[in-house]
Amino acid sequence: MKKTVLSGMRPTGKLHLGHLVGALNNWLKLQKEYQCFFMVADWHALMSEYKSPSGISNFAVDNVIDWLSCGIDPESSVIFVQSQVKEHLELYMVLSCLVPLGWLERCPTYKEQKKELKAKDISNYAFLGYPVLQAADILLYKADCVPVGEDQLPHLEICREIVRRFKSLYKKDVFVEPQALLTKVPRLLGIDGRKMSKSYDNTIALSDSPEMITKKVSSMFTDPKRIKRTDVGHPKQCNVYNYYEVFKPELKDEVYNWCTKAELGCTECKQKLAGILIEQLSPIQQKRAHFESHKDLVTDILRDGQKQAAEFAANTMKEVKEALGNGLL
Amino acid sequence: MKKTVLSGMRPTGKLHLGHLVGALNNWLKLQKEYQCFFMVADWHALMSEYKSPSGISNFAVDNVIDWLSCGIDPESSVIFVQSQVKEHLELYMVLSCLVPLGWLERCPTYKEQKKELKAKDISNYAFLGYPVLQAADILLYKADCVPVGEDQLPHLEICREIVRRFKSLYKKDVFVEPQALLTKVPRLLGIDGRKMSKSYDNTIALSDSPEMITKKVSSMFTDPKRIKRTDVGHPKQCNVYNYYEVFKPELKDEVYNWCTKAELGCTECKQKLAGILIEQLSPIQQKRAHFESHKDLVTDILRDGQKQAAEFAANTMKEVKEALGNGLL
Repeated sequence: MKKTVLSGMRPTGKLHLGHLVGALNNWLKLQKEYQCFFMVADWHALMSEYKSPSGISNFAVDNVIDWLSCGIDPESSVIFVQSQVKEHLELYMVLSCLVPLGWLERCPTYKEQKKELKAKDISNYAFLGYPVLQAADILLYKADCVPVGEDQLPHLEICREIVRRFKSLYKKDVFVEPQALLTKVPRLLGIDGRKMSKSYDNTIALSDSPEMITKKVSSMFTDPKRIKRTDVGHPKQCNVYNYYEVFKPELKDEVYNWCTKAELGCTECKQKLAGILIEQLSPIQQKRAHFESHKDLVTDILRDGQKQAAEFAANTMKEVKEALGNGLL
Repeated sequence: MKKTVLSGMRPTGKLHLGHLVGALNNWLKLQKEYQCFFMVADWHALMSEYKSPSGISNFAVDNVIDWLSCGIDPESSVIFVQSQVKEHLELYMVLSCLVPLGWLERCPTYKEQKKELKAKDISNYAFLGYPVLQAADILLYKADCVPVGEDQLPHLEICREIVRRFKSLYKKDVFVEPQALLTKVPRLLGIDGRKMSKSYDNTIALSDSPEMITKKVSSMFTDPKRIKRTDVGHPKQCNVYNYYEVFKPELKDEVYNWCTKAELGCTECKQKLAGILIEQLSPIQQKRAHFESHKDLVTDILRDGQKQAAEFAANTMKEVKEALGNGLL
């Protein structure tokens, strides 16, 4: 039997190249090897977007269209929306009872985000429970593995602690401790050289038109020391070169020469990169156009996914209630 | 149109005279004047009973049998179990996003209970959110009024703050601020003279047999200065006299004389009290016996209550989602 993976995304904006390189390409590999549950984490989105939550629902559908267009296959993976499966909040509440406040207050990601996310007010009650809901998501489907970046390891550790605490309190092996699938993902920065993020307005969206892509790539910073066309450049310090490494590695030696030998100017180098990105996104965007004009397909896929997820989740909750001595009706 | 009241009890044990005098007698009055929602707060019970939650479900049914036996009328009031209406946790999650942590950490009841409830470990994440779930309970049914003791006023104040915050964030009048129905209830102590509480094992349960009641009443402390039968007593310092004041006020002058004039000994005085309690509980216990042997009646009442509550709750959640710009699917 295939092992189970759960992964999700918060529907807080349009998906961009960062998502493709950092998550979706990995999901494509995972879905061949694992039984995957891919979840739109809309409750998690609300925790930080509650001041203007109206976009969540549209982004949810839009993101799923991107998933499908990239090749996530609803025949082999379960694609669903968190808020449509009521057991997420039920298990969240049960686990909330078992989790000492201190585990959450001391969680390094929590302390970090409180410091860094200045633009959003996350000093609300729900956000403190972020890792508890994440644990509920994972445990509901008894996921063996969870693809995470290193920064998310503390959350997975809380999840494992919860499994141990559940077992020690109720003497029942309902859950297994999920393992981290640490994935090395290529580093990809935004077009301004900072972390790619919608809040910096420096992303290239998977759904950007060829014109938009060309425009965005042409605005990218290159080696600031290469002022004239005849100056030689330093590709290792150039964001554009990094894009070639990620999206066209077979060309990287050639691009290296263009730059270090001043064979090609930055403008042409960026034009070529834009062409490559447009070409690579083209099949995704063609599928996207199909789903855009057949939204009912997406609705059907989500309904089907909800059914499969809910069935699995209901079984788990049945076991949870039994473990609690059928104390909940 | 009748105004709406919501009230609930946590199913953490059998109901006793304290519940009758402190809540149920008040509910009986309220159900004539208001549209009442009476809720078994099993999620709230789990927040403190998570270490041994197996009794919750049985106590839930047992408590409802007591409600019905005391005269709570399922034809005029909605009787239901919190965990059976999924919207409670949905609204709880939405409100959790709006509530600053500080409101909960500074709540006087929270600080008090952390100090006093030594026997229970309530330093868990869920317990901090107790008033948020309470707010969700109240707001889901748009209760105009909530019967509370003075100690619960801070929770109602948090609920009203949540209403104001919801309105200020989403510019929608989904909720009205619920008002406190402060009810003066007679003071009734346990048979050992401390606060009546299952954890002190000093209660007289509504379902106690006549023999048990007689035994418990006979063990009650009376005026310690009245040592011999011929000594005069001090009724104002006697817990038994207090019971007469509560359960047979028309007899209190006579009892006062028994004691202060040494007309009757404590043993006989307690025998008479036991007789009075047995007599008053008798019609309740007869109805109880009926429901005990017809559990399907209770199941039907709860199923019916769930249906009514869920319908109301679903409407409210629809409005909540609209207010949030339909951000949640």
